[in-house]
Amino acid sequence: MNTTVGIDLGGTNIKIGLVTNGGRIIQRITIPTNAQYGPEAVVANIINCLKQWQNQYQTIGIGVAGLIDHKKGIVHFSPNLPNWKNIPLKTWLRKVIKQPVYVGNDANAFVLGEYCFGKAKGAKSVFGITLGTGVGGGMIIDGKLWLGISDAAGEVGHTTINFFGPRCACGNQGCLETYVGAKYIINRTKRKKTTGLLTDKNLTPALINLASKQGDKLAQAIIRETGVYLGIGLANVISLFDPALIVIGGGLSGFGKLLLNSVKQTVQARIMNFPGRRVKIVLSKLGDDAAILGASQFPKFL
Amino acid sequence: MNTTVGIDLGGTNIKIGLVTNGGRIIQRITIPTNAQYGPEAVVANIINCLKQWQNQYQTIGIGVAGLIDHKKGIVHFSPNLPNWKNIPLKTWLRKVIKQPVYVGNDANAFVLGEYCFGKAKGAKSVFGITLGTGVGGGMIIDGKLWLGISDAAGEVGHTTINFFGPRCACGNQGCLETYVGAKYIINRTKRKKTTGLLTDKNLTPALINLASKQGDKLAQAIIRETGVYLGIGLANVISLFDPALIVIGGGLSGFGKLLLNSVKQTVQARIMNFPGRRVKIVLSKLGDDAAILGASQFPKFL
Repeated sequence: MNTTVGIDLGGTNIKIGLVTNGGRIIQRITIPTNAQYGPEAVVANIINCLKQWQNQYQTIGIGVAGLIDHKKGIVHFSPNLPNWKNIPLKTWLRKVIKQPVYVGNDANAFVLGEYCFGKAKGAKSVFGITLGTGVGGGMIIDGKLWLGISDAAGEVGHTTINFFGPRCACGNQGCLETYVGAKYIINRTKRKKTTGLLTDKNLTPALINLASKQGDKLAQAIIRETGVYLGIGLANVISLFDPALIVIGGGLSGFGKLLLNSVKQTVQARIMNFPGRRVKIVLSKLGDDAAILGASQFPKFL
Repeated sequence: MNTTVGIDLGGTNIKIGLVTNGGRIIQRITIPTNAQYGPEAVVANIINCLKQWQNQYQTIGIGVAGLIDHKKGIVHFSPNLPNWKNIPLKTWLRKVIKQPVYVGNDANAFVLGEYCFGKAKGAKSVFGITLGTGVGGGMIIDGKLWLGISDAAGEVGHTTINFFGPRCACGNQGCLETYVGAKYIINRTKRKKTTGLLTDKNLTPALINLASKQGDKLAQAIIRETGVYLGIGLANVISLFDPALIVIGGGLSGFGKLLLNSVKQTVQARIMNFPGRRVKIVLSKLGDDAAILGASQFPKFL
């Protein structure tokens, strides 16, 4: 059987999967990233995990948040991995591992996972957006992953939706991420008069979601408002790229239909409508597996 | 010699060129559009013009502003041609003309003209933007014109740069076009304390340009400010699409280096910068010919 390894290298955990041709994860390993010990330690831990599958896989794909040189397999910068500056991840792994290694951006892994095995299967063109602490994106055009000239296409989180808007960590003002990134949603909630679950000092999107499901009006309003901002950003994606399908993933996609309906309404109000207009917007159903599955497909797409 | 016909069907004039394989326009005809007489009259006038070249060309390409069904050659809607609603332009022309006819969006014609014969020749990926009364765009990806699933890709003029911004004719708020469209620039100028040329009741972008060249500080500030807004819109294009080249055309590209430098500064300040970042931004040098030349290439790209 042809199997490949897909790795989702995140700031908190490293999720490793042994994936079949058909997109089934037949074995899994999850270990803490422990980024504080530095990139060498992280890579040593990955190599250690892979030992037990030594001859069971043909290739390895790794998805990492941040700016990646996909050809050379270098992580230039990662918001989730402090001290990762121009780390030649591929070279380091290939010193020990004999199988080919492919390194890519985590949002590209997400959109590939959806395109190969999820909601975007077979779609002519796809834009994938991941909502979490950061907001990433990736695009499939004519069956190919579109990386752009600088390997930096799909950065929807850093498109401007309000040029007077809040300062973003990237240096720009009014980026989509400053409206729909997890910490901005939490801060927006905290500035309101909260009750119940929402008064939690360690408020998280998951708690906002729970409160919303329990009928908290403020939590519901926050999620709908997040959908409005997201809809503005995605309307821009549609106006520019006109994809067949947009798939929304990442932790915040757990906001579910309340978010999705608000997104759809906003998009409808903001894009040019005409009889031939076609675009579908859906929520990911693969959850955390999207990044593992997508990374396992890097060998075919990078 | 292989020659093709390229037609730029605008709201004011119809520009027709007999174009060689190498992109030389060897004969030209320009007639007034007279859109008020209706689409049948416009098409009859085009057919009349083409009679004199009867056996000299192999194919015809026509660029029209608006929403086009590129496959069927139908003009769904054109902002420049009132009463053009779902006009089967290709079918009407083919009733009389034996050569194949291709109908496309004018901004797509522009970017093709630049890609085949202008500043974007040979570029790996190109975004073309046309600045005039309307703001259009088109994109070349991997040597192909990218139309999107609804034939509506590249609509950069209707991307939101400020969700609180002015209402646009398209129904959206804060579209790029509401900041850099000709009439918005004129109105912004008129609201200031103008002197000299800028007091002209029939103020045009050309007059603003002339005033700027004569040293008018307000005119210069207006052009620089237009460059800032344009830079915000183009930074979004770069973040999403990451093209190798952006080429700026249309009447307002006559604002020249003052505009271009302001665009470049704004883009630089707003996109994520990293060592591998590559994007060039240039002004078109083809002028009005870009649309004729690009339309003549529709047969190869549609």
